[in-house]
Amino acid sequence: MKCKRCSAVAQVALPSHHTAFCPECFFLFFSRQVEKAIHKQSMFRFDERILVALSGGKDSLALALQLQMLGYTVSGLHIDLGIGDSSRQARELTEKFCRQFSIELHVLETTRYGLAIPRVKARVKRPICSVCGQIKRYYFNWFALENGYDVLATGHNQDDETARLMANVLSWDKDHLRDQHPVLTAENGFVRKVKPLYLLSEYETAAFCVLKKISYGFTPCPYSQGASFTFYKELLAQLEKKQPGRKRSFYGKFLKDGRKYFAQAQAENPLGRCQQCGMPTSLEYCPVCRLRQQLCSGDSKHHS
Amino acid sequence: MKCKRCSAVAQVALPSHHTAFCPECFFLFFSRQVEKAIHKQSMFRFDERILVALSGGKDSLALALQLQMLGYTVSGLHIDLGIGDSSRQARELTEKFCRQFSIELHVLETTRYGLAIPRVKARVKRPICSVCGQIKRYYFNWFALENGYDVLATGHNQDDETARLMANVLSWDKDHLRDQHPVLTAENGFVRKVKPLYLLSEYETAAFCVLKKISYGFTPCPYSQGASFTFYKELLAQLEKKQPGRKRSFYGKFLKDGRKYFAQAQAENPLGRCQQCGMPTSLEYCPVCRLRQQLCSGDSKHHS
Repeated sequence: MKCKRCSAVAQVALPSHHTAFCPECFFLFFSRQVEKAIHKQSMFRFDERILVALSGGKDSLALALQLQMLGYTVSGLHIDLGIGDSSRQARELTEKFCRQFSIELHVLETTRYGLAIPRVKARVKRPICSVCGQIKRYYFNWFALENGYDVLATGHNQDDETARLMANVLSWDKDHLRDQHPVLTAENGFVRKVKPLYLLSEYETAAFCVLKKISYGFTPCPYSQGASFTFYKELLAQLEKKQPGRKRSFYGKFLKDGRKYFAQAQAENPLGRCQQCGMPTSLEYCPVCRLRQQLCSGDSKHHS
Repeated sequence: MKCKRCSAVAQVALPSHHTAFCPECFFLFFSRQVEKAIHKQSMFRFDERILVALSGGKDSLALALQLQMLGYTVSGLHIDLGIGDSSRQARELTEKFCRQFSIELHVLETTRYGLAIPRVKARVKRPICSVCGQIKRYYFNWFALENGYDVLATGHNQDDETARLMANVLSWDKDHLRDQHPVLTAENGFVRKVKPLYLLSEYETAAFCVLKKISYGFTPCPYSQGASFTFYKELLAQLEKKQPGRKRSFYGKFLKDGRKYFAQAQAENPLGRCQQCGMPTSLEYCPVCRLRQQLCSGDSKHHS
């Protein structure tokens, strides 16, 4: 198979784009998809400070490197969740990556705030993936605001967004349908959030890392077994196999047309500020402060 | 396993309802689901004349019998599509059923209107399932209006409606999302259309027929191989297995909440009347008159 651009030997086949590339032309394709996303959605400018959420997985590492290569001002934030070997490996890979490519890295340990995930999981009945997600979103937003970043960039790719869209549609969650977009503007105590990889697939970000010789974490979190997102990705993969291009058109048409119908959906509870920490919430206390209160009351019950 | 209602031996297990019934109690359950659908959606009254679209499959036969048992005034219309053995078998089963249960039956042969499906398939490039659907919808509507019926009832069950919803969502088809409902009121040259089985699953209508000893057609149409609806049903079955009750909640929440967001979607082309036959269409000629024009011009080309 030959590269469709330069006729060298192709190493990356992209059936959904009806094309194949050699490594150099694939990097050009990847870079152009990221630039297209940034410009089409007016994500950020060269004079803005960008904080990249770095999990240590392929998507976030590819994102940070690509943005740096495009000349943007990038720092990374890794949140160490305290989940044994899994978190240790993720942190080491992130640190190694940032040293290798000279990207500034901040590390925030949730253990310092009394929120190591195994401890939370032992005390809280709700599904741990949802609680863990709340904790991460809280600290990414808090850290970005606290340190004056203009924008928080996350490595969500097209497969992530399509699976999320499927989840939101299956439950007709109007708030999440209204808010699902590659750019969420800064408002109500939230920093601007962007997803510059929303045009690229999981396979494409993995190929980027492999060809750039980036070691990334691929051990799934020990708590995420059977998570519904993984299942939606499997269903969508079957759909894509049967109807090539369907995944992209499902998400693309949603952004272009479907989403606007939910713009009128009013949030059931308007946002205010947390009485404890001042971060945005629709209740008296934000989810993280409520969680810490719950853990404290659990502790006092335990000790009494 | 015992019947959850009367403790007799259960013959129909309904995991999605967390229950199981003996035949008599299953018939009561089935009947109540149909009554619930009719009353909740104000489908029709006892003094109205109901035309049931009878394909010869389990759903339409179960519907006609159940409506008759509830005391409604029911006639059947079977459309003979002229697809060889498949159509012959469907027509025979429908005729036998109507004789058995003393239900008035009308039969309309599309061949008489120059529209035998094999001939259409040979001349038209569009997917035949979509063209065949247009022909059937046209003649069901035309026959109901022409013969003064108040309402046209079809046997679409919950699985059909959920697969249709999935198709509409995957393509973000706002017109079809706006119009997907168990009741479409009479307007613009359309008779009122209702789906009294929308609360019952495919398995439940099959069980009804088996227990009532109704012979129904289950040979799929020879042209429907690999149809996307069948594939969506398979995907939704996987989803239901992983998340029991999800199929019902996906469709139920759409009717209750999701659908209203598409109410504002304006039809791109407002409906007028066909210049040829006077039936509703957004173009100069309705789909069936255009099809007949196309077939005629094909014939004349063929003969010239």
